Amino acid sequence: MTALSAAPASRLMQGSEAIAEAMIGAGCRFFAGYPMTPFTEVLEHMARKLAEVGGVCMNAESELEAVGMAWGAAATGTLAATGSTGQGLSLMQESLAEITLARLPLVVLNMSRGQGDYFQATRGGGHGDYRHIVLAPKDAAEAVELVGLAFELTVKWRNPVLVMGDYYLAHTARSVAIPAPVTHTLPSWALDGSSGGTGSAKLISFLGTQKQRSDVGYDLADHYTDCAKSTAAMAAGVDPLVESMGTDDAEVVVVAFGTPAKYVHSAVRQLRSEGAAVGYVRPVTLFPFPTEAVATAAAGAKAVAVYENNQGQMIDDVRLAVLGAAPVHFIGRLSIDSSGFGIAPDLDVEVIRDRIASVLDAAAGGT
Amino acid sequence: MTALSAAPASRLMQGSEAIAEAMIGAGCRFFAGYPMTPFTEVLEHMARKLAEVGGVCMNAESELEAVGMAWGAAATGTLAATGSTGQGLSLMQESLAEITLARLPLVVLNMSRGQGDYFQATRGGGHGDYRHIVLAPKDAAEAVELVGLAFELTVKWRNPVLVMGDYYLAHTARSVAIPAPVTHTLPSWALDGSSGGTGSAKLISFLGTQKQRSDVGYDLADHYTDCAKSTAAMAAGVDPLVESMGTDDAEVVVVAFGTPAKYVHSAVRQLRSEGAAVGYVRPVTLFPFPTEAVATAAAGAKAVAVYENNQGQMIDDVRLAVLGAAPVHFIGRLSIDSSGFGIAPDLDVEVIRDRIASVLDAAAGGT
Amino acid sequence: MTALSAAPASRLMQGSEAIAEAMIGAGCRFFAGYPMTPFTEVLEHMARKLAEVGGVCMNAESELEAVGMAWGAAATGTLAATGSTGQGLSLMQESLAEITLARLPLVVLNMSRGQGDYFQATRGGGHGDYRHIVLAPKDAAEAVELVGLAFELTVKWRNPVLVMGDYYLAHTARSVAIPAPVTHTLPSWALDGSSGGTGSAKLISFLGTQKQRSDVGYDLADHYTDCAKSTAAMAAGVDPLVESMGTDDAEVVVVAFGTPAKYVHSAVRQLRSEGAAVGYVRPVTLFPFPTEAVATAAAGAKAVAVYENNQGQMIDDVRLAVLGAAPVHFIGRLSIDSSGFGIAPDLDVEVIRDRIASVLDAAAGGT
Amino acid sequence: MTALSAAPASRLMQGSEAIAEAMIGAGCRFFAGYPMTPFTEVLEHMARKLAEVGGVCMNAESELEAVGMAWGAAATGTLAATGSTGQGLSLMQESLAEITLARLPLVVLNMSRGQGDYFQATRGGGHGDYRHIVLAPKDAAEAVELVGLAFELTVKWRNPVLVMGDYYLAHTARSVAIPAPVTHTLPSWALDGSSGGTGSAKLISFLGTQKQRSDVGYDLADHYTDCAKSTAAMAAGVDPLVESMGTDDAEVVVVAFGTPAKYVHSAVRQLRSEGAAVGYVRPVTLFPFPTEAVATAAAGAKAVAVYENNQGQMIDDVRLAVLGAAPVHFIGRLSIDSSGFGIAPDLDVEVIRDRIASVLDAAAGGT
Repeated sequence: MTALSAAPASRLMQGSEAIAEAMIGAGCRFFAGYPMTPFTEVLEHMARKLAEVGGVCMNAESELEAVGMAWGAAATGTLAATGSTGQGLSLMQESLAEITLARLPLVVLNMSRGQGDYFQATRGGGHGDYRHIVLAPKDAAEAVELVGLAFELTVKWRNPVLVMGDYYLAHTARSVAIPAPVTHTLPSWALDGSSGGTGSAKLISFLGTQKQRSDVGYDLADHYTDCAKSTAAMAAGVDPLVESMGTDDAEVVVVAFGTPAKYVHSAVRQLRSEGAAVGYVRPVTLFPFPTEAVATAAAGAKAVAVYENNQGQMIDDVRLAVLGAAPVHFIGRLSIDSSGFGIAPDLDVEVIRDRIASVLDAAAGGT
Repeated sequence: MTALSAAPASRLMQGSEAIAEAMIGAGCRFFAGYPMTPFTEVLEHMARKLAEVGGVCMNAESELEAVGMAWGAAATGTLAATGSTGQGLSLMQESLAEITLARLPLVVLNMSRGQGDYFQATRGGGHGDYRHIVLAPKDAAEAVELVGLAFELTVKWRNPVLVMGDYYLAHTARSVAIPAPVTHTLPSWALDGSSGGTGSAKLISFLGTQKQRSDVGYDLADHYTDCAKSTAAMAAGVDPLVESMGTDDAEVVVVAFGTPAKYVHSAVRQLRSEGAAVGYVRPVTLFPFPTEAVATAAAGAKAVAVYENNQGQMIDDVRLAVLGAAPVHFIGRLSIDSSGFGIAPDLDVEVIRDRIASVLDAAAGGT
Repeated sequence: MTALSAAPASRLMQGSEAIAEAMIGAGCRFFAGYPMTPFTEVLEHMARKLAEVGGVCMNAESELEAVGMAWGAAATGTLAATGSTGQGLSLMQESLAEITLARLPLVVLNMSRGQGDYFQATRGGGHGDYRHIVLAPKDAAEAVELVGLAFELTVKWRNPVLVMGDYYLAHTARSVAIPAPVTHTLPSWALDGSSGGTGSAKLISFLGTQKQRSDVGYDLADHYTDCAKSTAAMAAGVDPLVESMGTDDAEVVVVAFGTPAKYVHSAVRQLRSEGAAVGYVRPVTLFPFPTEAVATAAAGAKAVAVYENNQGQMIDDVRLAVLGAAPVHFIGRLSIDSSGFGIAPDLDVEVIRDRIASVLDAAAGGT
Repeated sequence: MTALSAAPASRLMQGSEAIAEAMIGAGCRFFAGYPMTPFTEVLEHMARKLAEVGGVCMNAESELEAVGMAWGAAATGTLAATGSTGQGLSLMQESLAEITLARLPLVVLNMSRGQGDYFQATRGGGHGDYRHIVLAPKDAAEAVELVGLAFELTVKWRNPVLVMGDYYLAHTARSVAIPAPVTHTLPSWALDGSSGGTGSAKLISFLGTQKQRSDVGYDLADHYTDCAKSTAAMAAGVDPLVESMGTDDAEVVVVAFGTPAKYVHSAVRQLRSEGAAVGYVRPVTLFPFPTEAVATAAAGAKAVAVYENNQGQMIDDVRLAVLGAAPVHFIGRLSIDSSGFGIAPDLDVEVIRDRIASVLDAAAGGT
């Protein structure tokens, strides 16, 4: 679906701008949000740029309104996105669940504060037994790639795709190559006044009252069963992505995601340069989780360490991958700065390095 | 804009179905709502029928979601409508105000309980000094006409138009002629991924944070000034509509609107057939209010009587029209049945007739 | 209910602080809001000060949450308040309507941007044919008095009371006397775990589903009838308040409310010092509107002029008072500055003076 | 805290009534909710009964309003509860997260449709890295016990406690013993107008804007750190509860929760009576999950089977307990009936029995 041009232009830009450019390049023509740092920065870029290509950017009065707008736009066949920080996503949970059950494409940004929204993102914070595809870039350059992928996947699976960012991602500038704009063929969910409607039209229409559904012979049990099958197919069909380093001979494998993983990567590199048998795995897709890759990486290790900027959430998925083959230690810590924007104090390579070293020592001692 | 076919088909249908047919005939291709009697009936019809013409009907999880959806759809250039009862409209006030300030076309149904929402409808229940055009049909046949007019006006003035209905309107069946479908040329607010965008794209985009606006040289004061001018032009430019009877020689003129006006009309007819000098005026547009027509009707009268199914709201507009030329008496009464759906008990032609007769007597005595 | 101490302390403070002090002094022990300029300033003062007297101040995540919190707190028998700017109040309309129908005491601040919310405030922007008592102070000192009165009235009438302020009121410092704290006897709506419940408990409980109500023999029609009676009694029982100057011999009477009225007052004073026959009336209660006082003031005048910082809303109430006895001219203008916070440019005494002078000239010419 | 009377009265009642009685007996004096089957039934009982003991039951206009009300009431020191089905809880996620971070006691019912809300309940569907204590009764009698426990725990840990029920629980009648009412000493979060306030008053007040917090030297990082410590203490301090049968000698252990577990229990009993080596474990607390008990039960087994009425959510927690010691098979199925109320078709003891038998066969074959 995405045909990248031979030589995309490169430009120094902050993550928030890069994400906006990538969304527009991927064909996004509707964006709605309510300002909340560090999501605001993306919204501002979209407000400036979307109009230039004939798209619509709505500055909503609340996250509830924003997600409603995005839902409405998506239902008309427009490639749409919305987002917020974790708080705003909490307010959107009912709508996000229903959009998933309505099987509409939508990209959702969580420009989060800290990493406390992992469970919300990967388990679906709402009702209804759905899952979102979740992508967690480490920097602006990867964000551009993953935003492109997000739009591909959301259209392919007709299921919302979450992209997780944070303050660091939004504010750190890098030289970023923006892919040439995708030329979209309007996908099958698109509805307009001239067409005769499709199965999808029905689908959206009759997620309604029982009377409405029985009037048209639409059975909610069937619908939910279809949704379940689709979720299972998606969980199996989306390629899990990882980045890893030095896991072959590692005695300790460290797992981290998102921007904090860059600090973990540095710490691991330092330790390895000093001869330590430490490896590194970064899940890039959080759902589907790269269970096999993490299990393989941990295969010969004496211990696994998980770094997250929260009280321990992804560690569940790591444990589910390792399944007792090695002990899994939490070396992260909830680290919110006093502004509530998160992250600063403990994203210190030295601190992380020391924590990994402790796990290495214990693992060596345990031999 | 609306070209009626030579011989539209006629069919017996309830008001709720007639409204749905009329909306679709007028080109509405997006409808969103949350079930609440007597609005539910319209929603159910739309769910069944909109899909047949390729449109989208969304059964939202709340009125907030519904209005957000409709806003999002309207912003993509889709001819959209939403609605509820008065309660639901209360929840939509922030969005309805902002949609008006964003100058988007949208038709909003208030299938109300009683007539207690007159102020909300005609003064704008939200912030921002806006007005909606308000149309109040008396029955299913007129509803079809006014729904068609509502879509014309909302596109022409890029301002939401409210259509007021109620339980009686929704549930009473009449033979109704459905006009042939309008073939729309997509109006100028329409935005799609291929177009270069218009002034309206900008308008929608930059109703945002101050920073966003100053980035693009967009001034909120200018925008609100434009909105104010547009509102004034609309208030002056929309033809006020009335129905009246026997006002030329009337000593007492009775004013009423919506379905209760049919009962008032019957009572007035009875009294006139008995020789009473009583006239009748029914505002069909509630905003702009037919001030002149009401003033003219009241010109030679000794008294004016206002019947509303509330504690007295339209009476303000009647007094503003009559301006002291004759005393204005309230003969209505808040009449909610125990179900909360409203209306039944006091919409009794005899009761209304007696109240009018009392005003007649007093007026005669006053001579 | 309020026993002022003999010699209240005076202190220089901004309006926002004065309002906070007055609320606490009046016995308010619960406050909830979501930050939005110029309401934020009041919220910050409450956050600091309410805890000192054992009260609770909640920084909500949205205005919907804020009004829900305040409603819940009020229902437990706590003297509560909430507020926002006009936008936030729009979002609260459903809850504000329902709180009124539940007959709970609540004080609501509208620290508005401009004066575009007059209709929303005085007509009730929500459903259900209710009214709020509305008080509009001109400065910090009067705000203190009226906030005290607001709490008295809300408890007395068990009906929400709105206090209208704005950016000027919030930010202009004056020497203000804070009345000594009121010692409250908990009023009859108060409910606690030990009491046997009261009629009010029932009232709050059974505003529910039809089944719930019929289970306890509670009839919604009766309830709404009671509400209507209560509204009528309140409209008749609350003393309308005005400030006026020189209306006895005035050829032109100027009407204005809130902080802009101070500028109008200055302009009128200047004109009078130059010998012009101009008077001034300021409605202090916007609902009930001081209809009689305005009518009396306008009695001998050749013209009435209305200054509002909007497109003309209060002018309806002025016309309803004057009822054709003199022409009523609008000399206001919507005047929002580019920040959206409102007011600055045209609150210029000279401009206002010129507009009044024009009306004077026309009135003189008309003789 | 709870002193049960010697001989509590027993009475046949449906689960919804039993839950209501138990809440009132446990001291709950505030309840707010928006009707949604099968939560409506509890709301109706509360509406009838809470008023009798002087409490307040609010029939909210939406789940957002309901949770706001409950939050406001809880903040005033009232023992409060709210609830809904999964959909409504989705809409409450932002507030539920913030209430947890504000460390207020609140009991929340999820009268769910199916069991698709396990992740939402146990991982916290909102932002902020919090957890709720989650209790899942199997029937009305146990619901009474667990509702009592929920109020104890919410006050002890100042953390919301979720009670999971469903349509079966709500509608199935059993003879239930209602414990004598608890006499509460108002706990320390209680605030009233006469007290001098406590640390908790501050806590609630200054979860606000950064400026508000810095004004009072309140650091959000400290607060979140405290919350994290409290969550960890709670996770460690609350006794996990299980019901189990025949796990000592089991080759296959079946895990299930809530009302479906009763069907699983029957199937296991049947199989055991026929000599099959099958055991049964039912987590009663879903968070903290009875990890140790499940691990112990699975210790000697050749396989573990998990039955859930969803696509597999608790199975993660079972796998995290078993940690590879035995294969864990999913034998549940999403089973929503066409009404959307869930559950009926597949809660068939024979079907469940067959599925367990298949796992037994496979396990035996694997020997």
